[in-house]
Amino acid sequence: MRNWNVYLSGEIHTDWREQIEAGVKSAGLPVSFSAPVTHHEASDDCGVTILGEEPDKFWHDYKGASVNAIRTRTLIGDADVVVVRFGDKYKQWNAAFDAGYAAALGKPLIVMHGPDHQHALKEVDAAAFAVVETPDQIVHILDYVINGNLAGYTG
Amino acid sequence: MRNWNVYLSGEIHTDWREQIEAGVKSAGLPVSFSAPVTHHEASDDCGVTILGEEPDKFWHDYKGASVNAIRTRTLIGDADVVVVRFGDKYKQWNAAFDAGYAAALGKPLIVMHGPDHQHALKEVDAAAFAVVETPDQIVHILDYVINGNLAGYTG
Amino acid sequence: MRNWNVYLSGEIHTDWREQIEAGVKSAGLPVSFSAPVTHHEASDDCGVTILGEEPDKFWHDYKGASVNAIRTRTLIGDADVVVVRFGDKYKQWNAAFDAGYAAALGKPLIVMHGPDHQHALKEVDAAAFAVVETPDQIVHILDYVINGNLAGYTG
Amino acid sequence: MRNWNVYLSGEIHTDWREQIEAGVKSAGLPVSFSAPVTHHEASDDCGVTILGEEPDKFWHDYKGASVNAIRTRTLIGDADVVVVRFGDKYKQWNAAFDAGYAAALGKPLIVMHGPDHQHALKEVDAAAFAVVETPDQIVHILDYVINGNLAGYTG
Amino acid sequence: MRNWNVYLSGEIHTDWREQIEAGVKSAGLPVSFSAPVTHHEASDDCGVTILGEEPDKFWHDYKGASVNAIRTRTLIGDADVVVVRFGDKYKQWNAAFDAGYAAALGKPLIVMHGPDHQHALKEVDAAAFAVVETPDQIVHILDYVINGNLAGYTG
Amino acid sequence: MRNWNVYLSGEIHTDWREQIEAGVKSAGLPVSFSAPVTHHEASDDCGVTILGEEPDKFWHDYKGASVNAIRTRTLIGDADVVVVRFGDKYKQWNAAFDAGYAAALGKPLIVMHGPDHQHALKEVDAAAFAVVETPDQIVHILDYVINGNLAGYTG
Amino acid sequence: MRNWNVYLSGEIHTDWREQIEAGVKSAGLPVSFSAPVTHHEASDDCGVTILGEEPDKFWHDYKGASVNAIRTRTLIGDADVVVVRFGDKYKQWNAAFDAGYAAALGKPLIVMHGPDHQHALKEVDAAAFAVVETPDQIVHILDYVINGNLAGYTG
Amino acid sequence: MRNWNVYLSGEIHTDWREQIEAGVKSAGLPVSFSAPVTHHEASDDCGVTILGEEPDKFWHDYKGASVNAIRTRTLIGDADVVVVRFGDKYKQWNAAFDAGYAAALGKPLIVMHGPDHQHALKEVDAAAFAVVETPDQIVHILDYVINGNLAGYTG
Repeated sequence: MRNWNVYLSGEIHTDWREQIEAGVKSAGLPVSFSAPVTHHEASDDCGVTILGEEPDKFWHDYKGASVNAIRTRTLIGDADVVVVRFGDKYKQWNAAFDAGYAAALGKPLIVMHGPDHQHALKEVDAAAFAVVETPDQIVHILDYVINGNLAGYTG
Repeated sequence: MRNWNVYLSGEIHTDWREQIEAGVKSAGLPVSFSAPVTHHEASDDCGVTILGEEPDKFWHDYKGASVNAIRTRTLIGDADVVVVRFGDKYKQWNAAFDAGYAAALGKPLIVMHGPDHQHALKEVDAAAFAVVETPDQIVHILDYVINGNLAGYTG
Repeated sequence: MRNWNVYLSGEIHTDWREQIEAGVKSAGLPVSFSAPVTHHEASDDCGVTILGEEPDKFWHDYKGASVNAIRTRTLIGDADVVVVRFGDKYKQWNAAFDAGYAAALGKPLIVMHGPDHQHALKEVDAAAFAVVETPDQIVHILDYVINGNLAGYTG
Repeated sequence: MRNWNVYLSGEIHTDWREQIEAGVKSAGLPVSFSAPVTHHEASDDCGVTILGEEPDKFWHDYKGASVNAIRTRTLIGDADVVVVRFGDKYKQWNAAFDAGYAAALGKPLIVMHGPDHQHALKEVDAAAFAVVETPDQIVHILDYVINGNLAGYTG
Repeated sequence: MRNWNVYLSGEIHTDWREQIEAGVKSAGLPVSFSAPVTHHEASDDCGVTILGEEPDKFWHDYKGASVNAIRTRTLIGDADVVVVRFGDKYKQWNAAFDAGYAAALGKPLIVMHGPDHQHALKEVDAAAFAVVETPDQIVHILDYVINGNLAGYTG
Repeated sequence: MRNWNVYLSGEIHTDWREQIEAGVKSAGLPVSFSAPVTHHEASDDCGVTILGEEPDKFWHDYKGASVNAIRTRTLIGDADVVVVRFGDKYKQWNAAFDAGYAAALGKPLIVMHGPDHQHALKEVDAAAFAVVETPDQIVHILDYVINGNLAGYTG
Repeated sequence: MRNWNVYLSGEIHTDWREQIEAGVKSAGLPVSFSAPVTHHEASDDCGVTILGEEPDKFWHDYKGASVNAIRTRTLIGDADVVVVRFGDKYKQWNAAFDAGYAAALGKPLIVMHGPDHQHALKEVDAAAFAVVETPDQIVHILDYVINGNLAGYTG
Repeated sequence: MRNWNVYLSGEIHTDWREQIEAGVKSAGLPVSFSAPVTHHEASDDCGVTILGEEPDKFWHDYKGASVNAIRTRTLIGDADVVVVRFGDKYKQWNAAFDAGYAAALGKPLIVMHGPDHQHALKEVDAAAFAVVETPDQIVHILDYVINGNLAGYTG
């Protein structure tokens, strides 16, 4: 049976990834998830920890973002579907960057955010194949897309 | 042994897919089939069922078609061979769209239709590597293409 | 000033292309239009006329469609924007094929059709950047997209 | 002499584009600039104005963003260099989306923003070939990159 | 008006290129032709003449073929249409190589040869958009493909 | 351990494929071989046998070559290395076509032929990473390229 | 669990590859390493040994480099990450060539060299996602990129 | 008449570019040359001069190399032919990097160097379409490739 690679980009301070993974596991779907490193401090400091300290915060951040990019570019490149979650806080420009990156590669994009971000995210939403608000909806999309299961119609 | 991915696009109201799959199974060919969701109502309503109702039929359809595209674009992208079936009824523009999509990706295309559609399908046929009328012919092509088996010549 | 190449695919029995071209000319937009050969009989018979007669209608059509494809593939490949028009009559599978072909190349797609075709064209519409009903709307899109002109907002 | 296409993405409420254009004109550089439509209301409403009203704000925005994408994808695709400006206000997720889109296409990316956004933009900056704070710096980069001019070194 | 680049590959010992060029000129078509160097001895010896003599004929030929490839790969890459002519004599493997090369790039291919080569060229013909026997047919295809002109139908 | 896909194109009337396969098996190399259908009559007649008879030999051949192309294009597309063998007889334009096709895809190409064909094959040889005369040399190349084994140097 | 392909290009006279492999093994990371043939004399002589002697050292080297390219191009094409090591001795142009080749393919590049080479390698370093000095750093990057492990932060 | 873009990469301390340009001008060839910035100090310092000083030499160099890459990647991407010159001095890893970058893009590569560098450059030479020692040879190649002129054979 075909395995689907799903990349989960964006917000790292809530458990939305765990909710999707639990739902997919419960539905028994053949999905492998990948994501950026979600340990905030590790993600910020990986560059200087491994490559050496930088007195200038710009290069501290630059080194970290570059090391993280080794992971994220590879996994987005492997993904069948890219999900990007915009949470309630922070600028989250990296999430929007990933969305643009995935769109240019022609990857089917699913965007998840609350209604209050709708206007600000209109360009991102317009590039998406689906716009959702909850992890459950992601699970339902995957169950439908992979197995053709739709509550009230099949099964 | 190499596995072949074959995508079966088009008509969803007859059992042509099952016939091909049965023939391929009987021939013992290493083929994995994929297809759009063939449950007509689920395919129509998947968008609003998962993403929320739409009062306007255009957006009802749009959401559904977009969710289906997550599946179809991924599976066509994975396919070694794309088979497109035009049946006797309906407009079947999605079948012709898939044929054009597959052709632009350079996928070997096989088109299946009755003789009455021949003139109307000439552009699609001209992009195909084979034009057939029956599921049996698809099975024979796969048996030949994969194993070199040809009735009356080999074995 | 940048010139925009716009390919006009689909229906050949009404004057929608001329309407768009007149509107664009009147607006003074830097657009070059291209299209399939719209002379119906020439388009059907170009293959056998140039390459030699065929007793079998299938090959008659096949040769013609192949010669036409030299033109259409080249011009779609050159296009910045691909417009596909579905009229009231005929199967128009070539139009849907062109839409799929353009979508796979990543070309911005505009689809034009009447409301009665809306459900049957949902997969094509979902791949489009805009769905319109009239040539005037195409002209307005081009005027906005190229020059930023929007009635009631600019100028 | 080679002409350079430079796309100016991002903030639309200050005159940073005009400053760059004036500097480039004054330096006599062979550069053609392109940009999204920068008339805020036109950009928001272009979809419904041309394609028809929508009662739901989501689709109002969606239509507008899709029409704008006809322009932005074409012009980013044409660009030799993509400049993305992040201003002091708003979410600006479309700017980050464009940066990701351009990066995936392999376009040399220049990012312009103030020091306060430095940490939040680290992933975008890490994908850039240059990170600047002022329009003047963009002009100097273009003058150097195109003509080899560098104050204090040449001429 | 759009200019068409047509690459003329293959046989160098008859005047088929000149016939096509004369016909195209007479029809006033906007076509630029390109071709390999057709001076047989120059083509054979260009490598050693410019890069230095080789005692081993294999490297003599290798150097020449490599220098010629700078030209042919560039011009085939630029071509809108690739015409490959197989004459009556010689192995002409370079012509078949060019046909395969053009096909893999997705270039519309036209093959010209006499009926006696038909069986041996079946794989090449099957990759072509048109198979012709005379230069006149090439001219007619170009006149039709570019301008829609077809004797007995238009004009 | 990485498996290598090696496509063996060209001559079908001698046992060069079997010799390579025996050598590779004896060396225990992780190689999967693929090839066109090598049953001459089946290869010629597969189109009409499966798709229906043709009174015109051109279309008889055309249908067969198209069906064969479903196999050959897929397998060449999968190959890590493409070997093309030119034998002593026949035109073998399909072999040269495959070589050009593989070269345009950037596949490492190995060409095998006797010294008498050297001048006629100079363009094909110049596109190759290695030119050999015997199946043994192919085995040695694979043993070296995959495992670093070279007689007299390693092991 | 996803396997990562890591290509180790460059210096062949120290045991840096073994150190990385040992570290990765010790950390239990799912990594497959590949590399050029590192037996210096075999690498130099593989061409003439397999393909036949050459009196001219240029062709001796050329044949060897071409045979090696069958391996290196294939394995770099397969790699998720390309590491290029510049040692203390020799010109090492092949290492820089591989770095440029990998960069053009969009492969994440890690460069390893001592501080004395820093200025001379600035163009290569600027194309890298990380610049390191020791094999240990490579292991730490892979442990972080693959598993999110970072000393002092996780675990 | 077709214009050829030729990029001249590598050594910046001798007048080889001027010699080629003079020869091409004298031959009246339709060639546009491009190159990196050849003012050594400007090339080293462009990053810090425009983007701000760096106390750490690594970032000083990094910024400069990144700004230079805006130019070099764009111009190599535009080139029909890439010439890479290796001189007598310095490491010249940027030249080898450019050669690898151009090779991966499929650009015809010409390498120029003295005989003493032959062994060390064997991998670069093996990727080239021609290996020369003098600017005159470059001019002769261009004259032949563009116009078919070869001393002693034509004209």
